[in-house]
Amino acid sequence: MRAEILSCGTELLLGHITDTNATYLAQNLSVLGIDLYHVSQVGDNLERIVESLRQGWERSQLIIMTGGLGPTEDDLSREAISTLLGETMTLVPELEANLRARFARQGATMPERNLKQATLIPSAQALPNPEGSAPGWFVEKDGRIIVAMPGVPREMYVMWEQQVIPRLQKYIQGIIFTRILRVYGLGESSVEERLQSLLSSTNPTIATYVKNDGINVRITAKATTKDAAAQQVAEMEQRARALLGTYIFGVEDDTLASVTGKALQARGQTLSVMESLTGGLLASAITDFQSSSKHFIGGIVSYSTELKIQMGVPRETVERYGVISAETAVAMARAVREQLKTDFGIGITGVAGPDRQEDKPVGTVHIAVCGPEGVVTVLGPGWRGRRADNKRHAVLAALNLLRYYLEGTVKPE
Amino acid sequence: MRAEILSCGTELLLGHITDTNATYLAQNLSVLGIDLYHVSQVGDNLERIVESLRQGWERSQLIIMTGGLGPTEDDLSREAISTLLGETMTLVPELEANLRARFARQGATMPERNLKQATLIPSAQALPNPEGSAPGWFVEKDGRIIVAMPGVPREMYVMWEQQVIPRLQKYIQGIIFTRILRVYGLGESSVEERLQSLLSSTNPTIATYVKNDGINVRITAKATTKDAAAQQVAEMEQRARALLGTYIFGVEDDTLASVTGKALQARGQTLSVMESLTGGLLASAITDFQSSSKHFIGGIVSYSTELKIQMGVPRETVERYGVISAETAVAMARAVREQLKTDFGIGITGVAGPDRQEDKPVGTVHIAVCGPEGVVTVLGPGWRGRRADNKRHAVLAALNLLRYYLEGTVKPE
Repeated sequence: MRAEILSCGTELLLGHITDTNATYLAQNLSVLGIDLYHVSQVGDNLERIVESLRQGWERSQLIIMTGGLGPTEDDLSREAISTLLGETMTLVPELEANLRARFARQGATMPERNLKQATLIPSAQALPNPEGSAPGWFVEKDGRIIVAMPGVPREMYVMWEQQVIPRLQKYIQGIIFTRILRVYGLGESSVEERLQSLLSSTNPTIATYVKNDGINVRITAKATTKDAAAQQVAEMEQRARALLGTYIFGVEDDTLASVTGKALQARGQTLSVMESLTGGLLASAITDFQSSSKHFIGGIVSYSTELKIQMGVPRETVERYGVISAETAVAMARAVREQLKTDFGIGITGVAGPDRQEDKPVGTVHIAVCGPEGVVTVLGPGWRGRRADNKRHAVLAALNLLRYYLEGTVKPE
Repeated sequence: MRAEILSCGTELLLGHITDTNATYLAQNLSVLGIDLYHVSQVGDNLERIVESLRQGWERSQLIIMTGGLGPTEDDLSREAISTLLGETMTLVPELEANLRARFARQGATMPERNLKQATLIPSAQALPNPEGSAPGWFVEKDGRIIVAMPGVPREMYVMWEQQVIPRLQKYIQGIIFTRILRVYGLGESSVEERLQSLLSSTNPTIATYVKNDGINVRITAKATTKDAAAQQVAEMEQRARALLGTYIFGVEDDTLASVTGKALQARGQTLSVMESLTGGLLASAITDFQSSSKHFIGGIVSYSTELKIQMGVPRETVERYGVISAETAVAMARAVREQLKTDFGIGITGVAGPDRQEDKPVGTVHIAVCGPEGVVTVLGPGWRGRRADNKRHAVLAALNLLRYYLEGTVKPE
């Protein structure tokens, strides 16, 4: 099956946003074994969208559109598909009721212009959108498929996974089974170096890609039954695990926060944090894990030195070693563990940028984890980059240090 | 002048990389006043690259290619341009000497396959590449221009700025000026409803799009001088401001955190927060603003009820009204303001999900801002969605309440 992607939105052509939807879909199509030969971006112009669709219709069996499903006059994907196919959009009472109910739940009245989000053409099925107001369209006609999804990435991801992939399954020969291994602590090229002997395998395939919080290793097998595909994937996973060892922290949707959270909950232990460099992002990452209230008691964002001292960090430690020091990170971890009466405490201090602090360069970060068996520390890498990236990297390093402590990979002193 | 971008590389179609080059070039073209109607990505396949170039040749005056200038068999941009124009690539002695000298400087011998990087066709000029081995091509023929640049972003940026823009200058008519207004508190369709009378304007244009933290309203004008374009934009901005009022919180890259941070710093006032629902994300958002250490003293992530009480929330308030209540939010704001000795304190409590709490539905959120003139509160909307979205929405609502307090839009009690 030959596919193409058509992303709609003038904001793409003005460079106000980057088409990361196309990247996500390209990765997915590759895993599904669907050939992708063309990706294009077009502005909110009916004529040009129709022209692009017509071209896609001639050369591909599957056209995946994102964007242009909003309620405004600039949102033209439905109109373009209708024009291409010569079909008329009509209001669907059930979709209208859903839409009005959605607004009502938010205590709002639906603007009349949103009504076009409740329309369909005869060749289209509606794709539910649990994350937003715009349903997608799944159009089948003359041996061709057009899928139209919202441009908002989180809405698109859910619709693609829950609604589109199942509908495409019958066009894909064989069953695809995929397993994701999650890796932290190695760059993508180092992961590939370690996996070198496996990368040339064609079934299962093994491939790496970068995520915000580590590297994903994706193992995909195609077979006639799900069990056979799963078995092939399991064998490859074992070989990959032998090569990557403790750098693998989880599978599928695991995060460093969920993995450490589950481990603490299994032991019946609790956690607290005191952070300055990361400014609350460590606590926020920990609480992104759904059941975090079972093990996470709380955090102190000690942005000022006085607050650190108020919360139990000895003034002497700060004065002697500086705020940006391993000693202060340890004192923060100890202090919050004692003040909040938890089994584990994490302390993070460092320079988030843009300016140096205590003559230490931007990106310097000291992390300490204090637990029942003692303390472990790590000096973050001297990365550079934007402030938000520095914060994110420090949070990951801290959670990984906690993971190593819990797994026994590092020994506390 | 009408332009299009053609990015070459199979890695784009596999989703291994995202086409950020297109974003960069799109932004640049917009500033230069060059219309960009099409962006496409195509794999390393001669036939498909030529087909895409031919289409571009028919509908645009300027085709900007990136990628495909490397030394391997997969690098086909030069070959595709030559095929399209029916011209023959010949080795240019001067380019060959440069290339060999470059390898020699690095103590290496040039592989023979790199020789194709020293070729030109009669219609092409070479564009020097100080960052890499592949010169670009600037092709002028029959009133059309094709620019071919390397895909490596840092090589492309330098070549574009130093070599391509000066060569394009003679073709550019008029200057583009753009202004972004940032809006919080209205959905995109409500923003458009208010701006209805302005949306049909063609110069300046006004358009809306959704960002993670609000709606952007983009005003763009084209004129013969920058001053004239800026003047047109300023007039349109004034009309938009009259229609959107205090929903506009800033311009360009402003965030609710930067706007409130700057306002507090201008007054010489300080801020602290106590948050449970948002789990540290409020503090993290505040500290994403670069100079936040000037006004932000710190935060308490009081995930457990006991920690709230330990930090100064009266046990009686929690027991009488529940943790999920406006009264507790006010008590949190008051407590942190007093404990951390700041001018303003923010309290957030609510149900982040996935389960109900105190029989209150997921998404319930109570926010309080306590300052020198008293307290203001807001009840967040009963949104649904993923945990991370609930947290993000609550953070934005809290920062916006602080903004309204500082601007005098809401009156404290």
